[in-house]
Amino acid sequence: MSAGTETVLDQVAFDANGLIAAVAQQHDSGEVLMLAWMNRDALRETIETGRACYWSRSRGRLWRKGESSGQTQRVVELRLDCDRDAVLLLVDQTGVACHTGRLSCFYDAVRDGKLVSITEPLVDPDQLYGR
Amino acid sequence: MSAGTETVLDQVAFDANGLIAAVAQQHDSGEVLMLAWMNRDALRETIETGRACYWSRSRGRLWRKGESSGQTQRVVELRLDCDRDAVLLLVDQTGVACHTGRLSCFYDAVRDGKLVSITEPLVDPDQLYGR
Repeated sequence: MSAGTETVLDQVAFDANGLIAAVAQQHDSGEVLMLAWMNRDALRETIETGRACYWSRSRGRLWRKGESSGQTQRVVELRLDCDRDAVLLLVDQTGVACHTGRLSCFYDAVRDGKLVSITEPLVDPDQLYGR
Repeated sequence: MSAGTETVLDQVAFDANGLIAAVAQQHDSGEVLMLAWMNRDALRETIETGRACYWSRSRGRLWRKGESSGQTQRVVELRLDCDRDAVLLLVDQTGVACHTGRLSCFYDAVRDGKLVSITEPLVDPDQLYGR
Protein backbone atom coordinates (compact mmCIF):
# COMPACT_ATOMS: atom_id res chain seq x y z
CA MET A 1 0.00 0.00 0.00
CA SER A 2 1.43 3.37 -0.95
CA ALA A 3 1.14 6.67 0.91
CA GLY A 4 -0.07 8.16 -2.38
CA THR A 5 -3.08 5.88 -2.47
CA GLU A 6 -4.15 6.95 1.01
CA THR A 7 -3.82 10.60 -0.02
CA VAL A 8 -6.09 9.91 -3.00
CA LEU A 9 -8.58 8.04 -0.80
CA ASP A 10 -8.66 10.98 1.61
CA GLN A 11 -9.95 13.17 -1.25
CA VAL A 12 -12.88 10.87 -2.08
CA ALA A 13 -16.36 11.91 -0.95
CA PHE A 14 -17.78 8.61 0.27
CA ASP A 15 -21.49 8.84 1.11
CA ALA A 16 -23.15 8.41 4.53
CA ASN A 17 -22.78 4.62 4.13
CA GLY A 18 -19.10 4.95 3.28
CA LEU A 19 -19.72 4.13 -0.38
CA ILE A 20 -19.10 5.67 -3.78
CA ALA A 21 -20.75 4.77 -7.09
CA ALA A 22 -18.38 3.24 -9.64
CA VAL A 23 -19.06 2.97 -13.36
CA ALA A 24 -17.09 0.46 -15.39
CA GLN A 25 -16.55 1.21 -19.07
CA GLN A 26 -14.75 -0.98 -21.62
CA HIS A 27 -11.67 1.11 -22.38
CA ASP A 28 -11.51 0.60 -26.14
CA SER A 29 -15.12 0.19 -27.30
CA GLY A 30 -16.52 2.72 -24.82
CA GLU A 31 -19.36 0.39 -23.83
CA VAL A 32 -20.63 1.11 -20.33
CA LEU A 33 -20.60 -2.28 -18.64
CA MET A 34 -22.04 -1.85 -15.15
CA LEU A 35 -22.50 0.38 -12.13
CA ALA A 36 -21.50 -0.92 -8.71
CA TRP A 37 -20.31 0.42 -5.38
CA MET A 38 -16.99 0.73 -3.61
CA ASN A 39 -16.08 1.44 -0.04
CA ARG A 40 -12.65 2.75 0.92
CA ASP A 41 -11.16 -0.75 1.11
CA ALA A 42 -12.53 -1.72 -2.31
CA LEU A 43 -11.24 1.46 -3.92
CA ARG A 44 -7.83 1.03 -2.28
CA GLU A 45 -7.60 -2.57 -3.50
CA THR A 46 -8.67 -1.55 -7.01
CA ILE A 47 -6.00 1.17 -7.18
CA GLU A 48 -3.28 -1.02 -5.70
CA THR A 49 -3.95 -4.22 -7.66
CA GLY A 50 -5.28 -2.82 -10.94
CA ARG A 51 -8.20 -5.25 -10.72
CA ALA A 52 -11.72 -4.00 -10.07
CA CYS A 53 -12.89 -4.73 -6.54
CA TYR A 54 -16.33 -3.55 -5.45
CA TRP A 55 -18.34 -3.59 -2.25
CA SER A 56 -21.29 -5.95 -2.51
CA ARG A 57 -24.16 -4.26 -0.70
CA SER A 58 -26.25 -7.43 -0.81
CA ARG A 59 -23.52 -9.66 0.58
CA GLY A 60 -21.93 -7.03 2.82
CA ARG A 61 -18.38 -7.86 1.76
CA LEU A 62 -15.68 -7.05 -0.76
CA TRP A 63 -16.50 -8.36 -4.19
CA ARG A 64 -13.45 -9.06 -6.28
CA LYS A 65 -15.10 -8.91 -9.69
CA GLY A 66 -14.76 -12.29 -11.37
CA GLU A 67 -13.88 -14.19 -8.19
CA SER A 68 -16.62 -16.76 -8.91
CA SER A 69 -17.20 -16.27 -12.62
CA GLY A 70 -13.67 -15.61 -13.87
CA GLN A 71 -14.99 -12.48 -15.58
CA THR A 72 -12.38 -10.10 -14.17
CA GLN A 73 -11.79 -6.44 -15.01
CA ARG A 74 -8.27 -5.11 -15.50
CA VAL A 75 -8.23 -1.40 -14.75
CA VAL A 76 -6.65 0.68 -17.50
CA GLU A 77 -7.47 4.00 -15.82
CA LEU A 78 -9.38 5.17 -12.78
CA ARG A 79 -10.98 8.61 -12.73
CA LEU A 80 -12.95 10.66 -10.21
CA ASP A 81 -15.55 13.26 -11.05
CA CYS A 82 -15.59 16.95 -10.15
CA ASP A 83 -17.43 16.32 -6.87
CA ARG A 84 -15.20 13.35 -6.06
CA ASP A 85 -18.33 11.31 -5.38
CA ALA A 86 -18.26 9.04 -8.42
CA VAL A 87 -15.61 6.78 -9.95
CA LEU A 88 -15.15 5.90 -13.60
CA LEU A 89 -13.13 2.76 -14.30
CA LEU A 90 -11.80 2.26 -17.78
CA VAL A 91 -11.36 -1.49 -17.82
CA ASP A 92 -10.47 -4.40 -20.00
CA GLN A 93 -13.29 -6.84 -19.31
CA THR A 94 -12.55 -10.55 -19.53
CA GLY A 95 -15.64 -12.17 -21.02
CA VAL A 96 -18.83 -10.49 -19.86
CA ALA A 97 -19.65 -8.06 -17.06
CA CYS A 98 -23.26 -9.08 -16.38
CA HIS A 99 -24.35 -12.06 -14.29
CA THR A 100 -26.96 -12.76 -17.00
CA GLY A 101 -24.14 -13.57 -19.43
CA ARG A 102 -24.47 -10.29 -21.33
CA LEU A 103 -21.49 -8.06 -21.99
CA SER A 104 -23.18 -5.08 -20.29
CA CYS A 105 -25.70 -4.92 -17.47
CA PHE A 106 -27.49 -2.10 -19.32
CA TYR A 107 -29.50 -4.25 -21.69
CA ASP A 108 -33.05 -2.99 -21.10
CA ALA A 109 -34.00 0.07 -23.09
CA VAL A 110 -37.13 2.17 -22.73
CA ARG A 111 -38.77 2.20 -26.15
CA ASP A 112 -42.33 3.29 -26.87
CA GLY A 113 -43.14 3.28 -23.16
CA LYS A 114 -41.88 -0.26 -22.62
CA LEU A 115 -38.74 -1.94 -21.34
CA VAL A 116 -37.20 -3.94 -24.17
CA SER A 117 -34.15 -6.21 -23.93
CA ILE A 118 -31.75 -5.07 -26.63
CA THR A 119 -28.97 -7.63 -26.21
CA GLU A 120 -28.83 -11.38 -25.71
CA PRO A 121 -26.57 -13.33 -23.36
CA LEU A 122 -23.22 -14.25 -24.91
CA VAL A 123 -22.59 -16.93 -22.29
CA ASP A 124 -24.89 -19.24 -20.36
CA PRO A 125 -24.98 -17.93 -16.77
CA ASP A 126 -24.94 -21.51 -15.48
CA GLN A 127 -21.59 -21.89 -17.18
CA LEU A 128 -20.28 -18.72 -15.50
CA TYR A 129 -21.19 -19.82 -12.01
CA GLY A 130 -20.72 -23.58 -12.41
CA ARG A 131 -24.29 -24.49 -11.60
CA MET B 1 -47.87 11.34 -19.31
CA SER B 2 -48.39 7.84 -20.71
CA ALA B 3 -49.55 4.74 -18.87
CA GLY B 4 -46.49 3.02 -20.35
CA THR B 5 -44.13 5.37 -18.57
CA GLU B 6 -45.74 4.63 -15.21
CA THR B 7 -45.40 0.89 -15.87
CA VAL B 8 -41.70 1.41 -16.58
CA LEU B 9 -41.29 3.54 -13.44
CA ASP B 10 -42.97 0.80 -11.37
CA GLN B 11 -40.16 -1.55 -12.41
CA VAL B 12 -37.38 0.76 -11.22
CA ALA B 13 -35.62 -0.07 -7.95
CA PHE B 14 -35.30 3.37 -6.36
CA ASP B 15 -33.18 3.34 -3.21
CA ALA B 16 -34.26 4.10 0.37
CA ASN B 17 -34.13 7.82 -0.48
CA GLY B 18 -36.26 7.32 -3.58
CA LEU B 19 -33.29 7.84 -5.89
CA ILE B 20 -31.49 6.00 -8.67
CA ALA B 21 -28.00 6.68 -10.03
CA ALA B 22 -27.96 7.91 -13.63
CA VAL B 23 -24.92 7.88 -15.89
CA ALA B 24 -24.90 10.14 -18.94
CA GLN B 25 -22.81 9.07 -21.92
CA GLN B 26 -22.33 10.98 -25.18
CA HIS B 27 -24.14 8.72 -27.64
CA ASP B 28 -21.69 8.90 -30.54
CA SER B 29 -18.25 9.34 -28.97
CA GLY B 30 -18.98 7.06 -26.00
CA GLU B 31 -17.50 9.58 -23.55
CA VAL B 32 -18.97 9.20 -20.06
CA LEU B 33 -20.02 12.72 -19.15
CA MET B 34 -21.36 12.61 -15.58
CA LEU B 35 -23.15 10.69 -12.88
CA ALA B 36 -26.15 12.22 -11.18
CA TRP B 37 -29.35 11.13 -9.45
CA MET B 38 -32.99 10.86 -10.39
CA ASN B 39 -36.11 10.43 -8.35
CA ARG B 40 -39.33 9.10 -9.87
CA ASP B 41 -40.43 12.54 -11.04
CA ALA B 42 -37.07 13.27 -12.68
CA LEU B 43 -37.03 9.92 -14.46
CA ARG B 44 -40.61 10.39 -15.61
CA GLU B 45 -39.83 13.84 -16.97
CA THR B 46 -36.70 12.56 -18.72
CA ILE B 47 -38.63 9.76 -20.43
CA GLU B 48 -41.56 11.97 -21.39
CA THR B 49 -39.63 15.01 -22.63
CA GLY B 50 -36.48 13.39 -24.01
CA ARG B 51 -34.40 15.94 -22.05
CA ALA B 52 -32.29 14.85 -19.07
CA CYS B 53 -33.82 15.92 -15.78
CA TYR B 54 -32.08 14.96 -12.55
CA TRP B 55 -32.78 15.33 -8.85
CA SER B 56 -30.36 17.74 -7.23
CA ARG B 57 -29.54 16.30 -3.83
CA SER B 58 -27.82 19.51 -2.74
CA ARG B 59 -30.70 21.78 -3.77
CA GLY B 60 -33.50 19.29 -3.00
CA ARG B 61 -35.33 19.92 -6.25
CA LEU B 62 -35.63 18.82 -9.86
CA TRP B 63 -32.65 19.85 -11.91
CA ARG B 64 -33.43 20.28 -15.59
CA LYS B 65 -29.93 19.89 -16.93
CA GLY B 66 -28.92 23.08 -18.66
CA GLU B 67 -31.66 25.23 -17.11
CA SER B 68 -29.09 27.82 -15.97
CA SER B 69 -26.15 27.05 -18.25
CA GLY B 70 -27.92 26.16 -21.49
CA GLN B 71 -25.89 22.95 -21.59
CA THR B 72 -28.83 20.59 -22.14
CA GLN B 73 -28.81 16.86 -22.84
CA ARG B 74 -31.10 15.39 -25.48
CA VAL B 75 -31.76 11.75 -24.63
CA VAL B 76 -31.12 9.40 -27.53
CA GLU B 77 -31.77 6.26 -25.48
CA LEU B 78 -32.48 5.42 -21.87
CA ARG B 79 -31.46 2.05 -20.45
CA LEU B 80 -31.79 0.29 -17.11
CA ASP B 81 -29.42 -2.29 -15.73
CA CYS B 82 -30.11 -5.89 -14.74
CA ASP B 83 -30.98 -4.92 -11.16
CA ARG B 84 -33.05 -1.98 -12.33
CA ASP B 85 -31.16 0.22 -9.89
CA ALA B 86 -29.07 2.24 -12.33
CA VAL B 87 -29.90 4.26 -15.44
CA LEU B 88 -27.71 4.82 -18.49
CA LEU B 89 -28.62 7.81 -20.62
CA LEU B 90 -27.20 7.98 -24.11
CA VAL B 91 -27.37 11.69 -24.77
CA ASP B 92 -26.45 14.38 -27.20
CA GLN B 93 -24.77 16.95 -25.00
CA THR B 94 -25.06 20.60 -25.96
CA GLY B 95 -21.73 22.20 -25.09
CA VAL B 96 -20.21 20.73 -21.95
CA ALA B 97 -21.60 18.56 -19.14
CA CYS B 98 -19.40 19.76 -16.28
CA HIS B 99 -19.92 22.94 -14.27
CA THR B 100 -16.14 23.50 -14.51
CA GLY B 101 -16.52 23.99 -18.28
CA ARG B 102 -15.09 20.59 -19.15
CA LEU B 103 -16.91 18.22 -21.47
CA SER B 104 -16.92 15.44 -18.86
CA CYS B 105 -17.00 15.60 -15.06
CA PHE B 106 -14.54 12.70 -14.94
CA TYR B 107 -11.37 14.70 -15.49
CA ASP B 108 -9.21 13.62 -12.54
CA ALA B 109 -7.26 10.44 -13.10
CA VAL B 110 -5.28 8.49 -10.54
CA ARG B 111 -1.75 8.21 -11.91
CA ASP B 112 1.30 7.17 -9.92
CA GLY B 113 -0.63 7.51 -6.67
CA LYS B 114 -1.77 11.06 -7.42
CA LEU B 115 -4.89 12.75 -8.76
CA VAL B 116 -4.05 14.44 -12.04
CA SER B 117 -6.37 16.62 -14.12
CA ILE B 118 -6.34 15.18 -17.63
CA THR B 119 -8.58 17.67 -19.43
CA GLU B 120 -8.89 21.44 -19.47
CA PRO B 121 -12.09 23.52 -19.46
CA LEU B 122 -13.46 24.18 -22.95
CA VAL B 123 -15.60 27.05 -21.71
CA ASP B 124 -15.17 29.60 -18.93
CA PRO B 125 -17.58 28.58 -16.14
CA ASP B 126 -18.37 32.27 -15.53
CA GLN B 127 -19.66 32.38 -19.07
CA LEU B 128 -21.86 29.33 -18.49
CA TYR B 129 -23.53 30.76 -15.42
CA GLY B 130 -23.49 34.42 -16.40
CA ARG B 131 -21.40 35.57 -13.47
